[in-house]
Amino acid sequence: CSAAQAQSSVTLYGALGLDVVSASNVYTGATKKSQLLIEDNAIVNSRIGLRGTEDLGGGLNAVFGLESTVHPDTGTAGNTSAYWNRGAFVGLTGSFGSIKIGHQWDVSDDLMGNYFVFAYYSPFFFSGFGSLSNYYDNAIKYSSPKIGGFEGGLFYALGEKTVSGSAGNFAQAVGTYTAGPFSIGLVGDTLKADDGSGNKDEMWALGAAYNFGPVKLRGGFARTDVEIGTPFKANLIDVGVDVPFSNVAGMSADFVKKDVKSSDDDTEYVRLQGYYRLSKRTSLNSNLIFLKNSGNADFVWYGDGSPGQKQTIFTVGITHAF
Amino acid sequence: CSAAQAQSSVTLYGALGLDVVSASNVYTGATKKSQLLIEDNAIVNSRIGLRGTEDLGGGLNAVFGLESTVHPDTGTAGNTSAYWNRGAFVGLTGSFGSIKIGHQWDVSDDLMGNYFVFAYYSPFFFSGFGSLSNYYDNAIKYSSPKIGGFEGGLFYALGEKTVSGSAGNFAQAVGTYTAGPFSIGLVGDTLKADDGSGNKDEMWALGAAYNFGPVKLRGGFARTDVEIGTPFKANLIDVGVDVPFSNVAGMSADFVKKDVKSSDDDTEYVRLQGYYRLSKRTSLNSNLIFLKNSGNADFVWYGDGSPGQKQTIFTVGITHAF
Amino acid sequence: CSAAQAQSSVTLYGALGLDVVSASNVYTGATKKSQLLIEDNAIVNSRIGLRGTEDLGGGLNAVFGLESTVHPDTGTAGNTSAYWNRGAFVGLTGSFGSIKIGHQWDVSDDLMGNYFVFAYYSPFFFSGFGSLSNYYDNAIKYSSPKIGGFEGGLFYALGEKTVSGSAGNFAQAVGTYTAGPFSIGLVGDTLKADDGSGNKDEMWALGAAYNFGPVKLRGGFARTDVEIGTPFKANLIDVGVDVPFSNVAGMSADFVKKDVKSSDDDTEYVRLQGYYRLSKRTSLNSNLIFLKNSGNADFVWYGDGSPGQKQTIFTVGITHAF
Repeated sequence: CSAAQAQSSVTLYGALGLDVVSASNVYTGATKKSQLLIEDNAIVNSRIGLRGTEDLGGGLNAVFGLESTVHPDTGTAGNTSAYWNRGAFVGLTGSFGSIKIGHQWDVSDDLMGNYFVFAYYSPFFFSGFGSLSNYYDNAIKYSSPKIGGFEGGLFYALGEKTVSGSAGNFAQAVGTYTAGPFSIGLVGDTLKADDGSGNKDEMWALGAAYNFGPVKLRGGFARTDVEIGTPFKANLIDVGVDVPFSNVAGMSADFVKKDVKSSDDDTEYVRLQGYYRLSKRTSLNSNLIFLKNSGNADFVWYGDGSPGQKQTIFTVGITHAF
Repeated sequence: CSAAQAQSSVTLYGALGLDVVSASNVYTGATKKSQLLIEDNAIVNSRIGLRGTEDLGGGLNAVFGLESTVHPDTGTAGNTSAYWNRGAFVGLTGSFGSIKIGHQWDVSDDLMGNYFVFAYYSPFFFSGFGSLSNYYDNAIKYSSPKIGGFEGGLFYALGEKTVSGSAGNFAQAVGTYTAGPFSIGLVGDTLKADDGSGNKDEMWALGAAYNFGPVKLRGGFARTDVEIGTPFKANLIDVGVDVPFSNVAGMSADFVKKDVKSSDDDTEYVRLQGYYRLSKRTSLNSNLIFLKNSGNADFVWYGDGSPGQKQTIFTVGITHAF
Repeated sequence: CSAAQAQSSVTLYGALGLDVVSASNVYTGATKKSQLLIEDNAIVNSRIGLRGTEDLGGGLNAVFGLESTVHPDTGTAGNTSAYWNRGAFVGLTGSFGSIKIGHQWDVSDDLMGNYFVFAYYSPFFFSGFGSLSNYYDNAIKYSSPKIGGFEGGLFYALGEKTVSGSAGNFAQAVGTYTAGPFSIGLVGDTLKADDGSGNKDEMWALGAAYNFGPVKLRGGFARTDVEIGTPFKANLIDVGVDVPFSNVAGMSADFVKKDVKSSDDDTEYVRLQGYYRLSKRTSLNSNLIFLKNSGNADFVWYGDGSPGQKQTIFTVGITHAF
């Protein structure tokens, strides 16, 4: 048997997906027009990565991960800050759970995806709610084992600013509980300003889901209190349902609303999503989004937003994992 | 059998090559001198890539590709725009041919390489003829199956400019026909200006080849009509011959001329190329180039060109594929 | 046997390591404070790479290598100049030794690591001594076979400046001799200024080591004569001892001093290092550094140095190779 000489400890994996997108009200100078675009798939994050596990004996394992965003519409990789933007860490796992150190996703990304729309067209793109799913430099993450339905994690990322020892530091804690078809999760986090002013952003979120079998109901609520930059407070709700039609097809629907306190500058959208699996690794999928801004809110997914504008988005795409 | 854990769906491949180059008339302030350089190999594009195919049943396959230029003389990767500059796509193949979406090579690169010098020292480096072999963002490519000697493709790339729905769009069509030792190919393409002005660049090219066995004759003719930027029209000819000496050695010769219409600012060169294969994957190879500019043309491969200058280039290199 | 389809000629390898670092006197405006940091591991350079060897018959092999720094604290890759910053080369090996061409490490890095501290907290970070271990563009490296205890190498890197044929060129030669527990090495190199002025930097270094079994003694001496930029001459000494405690644990100690000639602006440090191997591929390790500047010297590992300052550094880290 002549096997590949790739080290037995490394798994090379990834996914690529692309959408044909039709978006209304894309900015075109004085007027607003619909535009056809080819974009990265909005359900599966295109990426490549390396990962591995080594058995150290006594139930202890060494683990590592490296992951890089691929933008297949343009061929770019990573983000402007880092090639391995989606993770570069090493750690130990065992009966105690796991400890990982490096550039990595927060614990909310690991555990709160049951309750909010993740990937693209997600509420974590709203300012003030990014820590629902974000990655951080200089981070230590502890993830607990699952004990009687409980699971949780702690996350601490160093800002490493010279202005003060704690400037830019980020801390997050998550706890979840699962019992049969029911699950609930809670996250809280705080970020200190880079400038040593003592200003901080705080967010917490609560989510719950119940799987009835034919449908799964989800609900998430989050609240942010932003002091860094222009201060504001806002609530976020995400109410959703997942409906599998068969082993290979299904859809989901979400209503998401960001309500900025003491302001009419709110944003809300409905997201319908459907998928059809050609295989375990290859899928066709589609999104339909109705986005609406109120007051002076100008959030859009495509183009430059203008106050109070709407945007309707329709996508058809293909994704392939390897 | 303990095989590598690398996913069975991924092939990791690549090539690296380097040349020792001696080039005359490299710009050195007031004078022009020869210079010795170490450069990327001019026959094999150095690169790494991942590719894979998944059988979806019924003759349908999912395919993907990721490919990145490596410049082994300096260790840089990709180009300044993108790490995966040579391709980042996903698609479906079947009896209908293939459809691929993403950042990718045009269909001329796939099908017209029989008739023109490709890789480095190629006429597609002349302004106005780049689309003989180029890659584009936001592209959809259809490649036909081979039917009775016919083969072709359609390519459409979105500019995604907000100034108008079609600004920056590029369209290309190619058809080829092969009958025994004879083949012929035709390509036409058009690029709309980014600024929404409606200006466009148009190019078409015709190529033919006949394989006599001991030698293969090739000929290509192209015409460009450039409106974007400073307008000009130009013709291009490439007449060449491939001479295999044995299973492991051979040479080729090409005469290439760019004739700018209503102008004496023309450029022509002769390119002699030889190779000796140490194995299927490792080769030694060599180039000898005599380049001549007329009028105010100042095209050179090395240094800063000056009007009407010549450049003689001699390379010896090694290439290795993996 | 269903093996991976990764090409049998490629080995994908790498290492990741991170340290928790406590450093004193990190600059914080008017005051100096200790700071806690998460940094790349200081003993194992985090990296990924591809390498391969092809048997060409007759004792000849083709080899290639691609290697990229990973900074796992931030997820960045390579350096600002190049993704494959740690190597992009192709070459031939045989009974004559090896010849490699491309972006690559100098021969001092290959052969002088026995006598000086390498990786991080190394004297090659001192200005004037970088060529003890550095990588260069456009380089040809010849490495001899080991003949009766002798081993050596020649290295030549082209500056490829247009101002003159030799501006920026770098040349280095290394010879080592090993006899049982004793080894000795000598390196000399010269770098010509980029500006064609004829100024040059010259360095040579001598190292020796003796392995007594329970301990290994090492000593290195280097001298630099810098003309490019602000001229200076300096000596460097590195006296060290390696003490293995067992198959899995050990420590080393080094005293390093840079003595700038005709100046009191000197820098010295003591470095203690210990390791404990959890497996062949995974280790815990630690560093303790006492750094002292004299006169106007302001070299520090963290923060912005000020004249004559000290810095104490303590690290605890984990490394994992794959």
